[in-house]
Amino acid sequence: MPKINAERLIGDLKRLRQFGAKPPGVVRPAFSEADMEARNWLKDQYTEAGLEASIDGIGNVLGRSKNPGPALLIGSHSDSQPTGGWLDGAMGVIYGLEIVRALTEDSGTSQLAVDAVSWQDEESRFFSSMGSRSFSGQLPPGTLEGLCDKEGYPLEKALDSAGLKEVPFSKMEQGRYLGYLEGHIEQGPQLELEEKKIGVVSSIVGIGGTVFNFKGVQNHAGTTMMKIRKDASTALYRLASRINEEFPKVAGEHSVWTMGRAVLHPGAPSIVPGSAELELQYRDASIDVLEAFGQTVERLMEEINEMGGATVASRPSRIQIPPCDMDSNFQKHLSKAAEVHASDQWKTMPSGAFHDAGILQEVIPCGMLFIPSIGGVSHDFSENSHDEDIILGCQVMADAAASLLQEKSF
Amino acid sequence: MPKINAERLIGDLKRLRQFGAKPPGVVRPAFSEADMEARNWLKDQYTEAGLEASIDGIGNVLGRSKNPGPALLIGSHSDSQPTGGWLDGAMGVIYGLEIVRALTEDSGTSQLAVDAVSWQDEESRFFSSMGSRSFSGQLPPGTLEGLCDKEGYPLEKALDSAGLKEVPFSKMEQGRYLGYLEGHIEQGPQLELEEKKIGVVSSIVGIGGTVFNFKGVQNHAGTTMMKIRKDASTALYRLASRINEEFPKVAGEHSVWTMGRAVLHPGAPSIVPGSAELELQYRDASIDVLEAFGQTVERLMEEINEMGGATVASRPSRIQIPPCDMDSNFQKHLSKAAEVHASDQWKTMPSGAFHDAGILQEVIPCGMLFIPSIGGVSHDFSENSHDEDIILGCQVMADAAASLLQEKSF
Repeated sequence: MPKINAERLIGDLKRLRQFGAKPPGVVRPAFSEADMEARNWLKDQYTEAGLEASIDGIGNVLGRSKNPGPALLIGSHSDSQPTGGWLDGAMGVIYGLEIVRALTEDSGTSQLAVDAVSWQDEESRFFSSMGSRSFSGQLPPGTLEGLCDKEGYPLEKALDSAGLKEVPFSKMEQGRYLGYLEGHIEQGPQLELEEKKIGVVSSIVGIGGTVFNFKGVQNHAGTTMMKIRKDASTALYRLASRINEEFPKVAGEHSVWTMGRAVLHPGAPSIVPGSAELELQYRDASIDVLEAFGQTVERLMEEINEMGGATVASRPSRIQIPPCDMDSNFQKHLSKAAEVHASDQWKTMPSGAFHDAGILQEVIPCGMLFIPSIGGVSHDFSENSHDEDIILGCQVMADAAASLLQEKSF
Repeated sequence: MPKINAERLIGDLKRLRQFGAKPPGVVRPAFSEADMEARNWLKDQYTEAGLEASIDGIGNVLGRSKNPGPALLIGSHSDSQPTGGWLDGAMGVIYGLEIVRALTEDSGTSQLAVDAVSWQDEESRFFSSMGSRSFSGQLPPGTLEGLCDKEGYPLEKALDSAGLKEVPFSKMEQGRYLGYLEGHIEQGPQLELEEKKIGVVSSIVGIGGTVFNFKGVQNHAGTTMMKIRKDASTALYRLASRINEEFPKVAGEHSVWTMGRAVLHPGAPSIVPGSAELELQYRDASIDVLEAFGQTVERLMEEINEMGGATVASRPSRIQIPPCDMDSNFQKHLSKAAEVHASDQWKTMPSGAFHDAGILQEVIPCGMLFIPSIGGVSHDFSENSHDEDIILGCQVMADAAASLLQEKSF
């Protein structure tokens, strides 16, 4: 079995951290100067590793093996959140690079084909998982037209200043890939809490959500009697509390829900709010649980509307993602390798966060591997993992990549 | 008894509406060009009515009777909210002017002394009830130093461009006043709902309030399990709902409470909020009820802090006003006049909003009279009252002014 080079792996991760460094984190949003510098550096590393390297018109960096297929595609994304950690995406990208090198250096695996990739804009500066959607043919025509980031900066200008204006978009070569492997930090605390070293991802949870609009009557907070008020905030507090009371009754073991956005209008302490908005997001790997949450929401909205105060209406929130499973054979190979290197210290688990593998599984088999996040922290400069966990995860994935390819090649 | 001139009263009110007109409302914040034009116009009207008129260094317009005292002071404020109605304050100011004229024109009352006034900045552009505080010696030294409005515009510059920089502040002449009368629109719907024409104000409600700070742990909304979350929004929704459940149990008939400001940080739908702020304001004329609300808040905060999620701490909100009573003899004279002109169509009621009379009652007896607000609307361009109600209110107050002065003079 191939042996990864731990020093080289950690060294390259630390080199990548220097692009957009904001110690201990990084600021490397898609198409920023730091992001493009990192992508050019990565392209050079792919070339040095013996791959045919290119950056396509949407910013994906692809390193294509010169070996004949079938091939595995391994990677993640090197763009970061506006206040990003150094491992989110970056680790999976360097896993791809290191596994290419490790398999090339081992005479038993040097003939296998592994393509390495860094997707563009997984973190949704312009459009969530834009790079993997583009590569896998899942960007409907017109999607990118007129796109701007939250500051109103147009994608077109970003592509132009990144020098990508005239560069064509790469598309997945039909029939080439056995599938896609992605390594990632967990971004949550489960593995650490249960003292596990490896998570084999069974599924990526689906996301449902609702935006609630409350309509009341704005009034003077001193002169308007309680009995005639239609206070939008009262209805909001009540609905949110009822959701927190009722959701546990239909939730699954791994269900999560969040009401992280609430806005009152006009939002002054001495004015009865005339309107308000609340956003609910919920996640689970089971479509049944997601549907039960949706039904609970409908029931609780009726409850509010029957109270005679402010009324509530709703619309689906922008993000609605069905749950998806990782390929069972990929899970089997990852589990086998995990058992070899971390006996009894690994577990099968759903991913609560979305990843490029959630896009690619629509067209090819996918597998994902998690390593523990210290304190469960992510999307924050302080995000970190232990070096030995990073190294262990890469070795497990290298083993799984080799065995997946060997299963098909021999 | 003196008879007011209804046509003159409504005519002057409509003339005053032209300063800063934003039909059907007005934009006449303290010291704005429109406000100072209105004050200069008003000064001329005071002079024409036979008063010694002046604008003092803080912008109060005072019209002083040439008759010997004891005198009544009658008025309100002519500055408006940023999006103000045409009657809030303005009506009480023109009541003062018209009552001076009506009493002067009646041989039975022409020897009585009524001073008319328009206070500056009741609406708190720089400092709530600044003018009446200044006149009555309730502006502690240094209060005005460095004061700016919400846009950061300094009071000093506002005074300068209003031409008031070198003008001294007028102070209340000790021993001159029997007391102060203020007419005002109700700014709420009670009178209209009960088909009353006149409200004799018994008290101005006190205001208590609390700013709650919730402290949790910010986390990824997908990867952080429910059981380990410390979600600041969950604690906020819960506390707010519990307040709305528990306050009715200790509330008085006229109690009101509002939680019109709630802010979540960072306020994104897929991030578990790490902190949040909620502001509660409550009003009642009884100090006992205000204290019961305060104790309920303490108890409910403990309840939240025992739940093991995000914690809550509190501080008193900026505005804490004790309730105050209007003078009982002034109430008696107003009630008697109301019964004459609106038999069975008047009631005694607390004021849910604050007024300059709440400042002046610290130093002299005060009385207030309300007339109905159409639909209870105030602090809005559409604020309005029926002409016949405006006229009736003025006549009732004129009667009460005459009888109060005659009681002392003869």
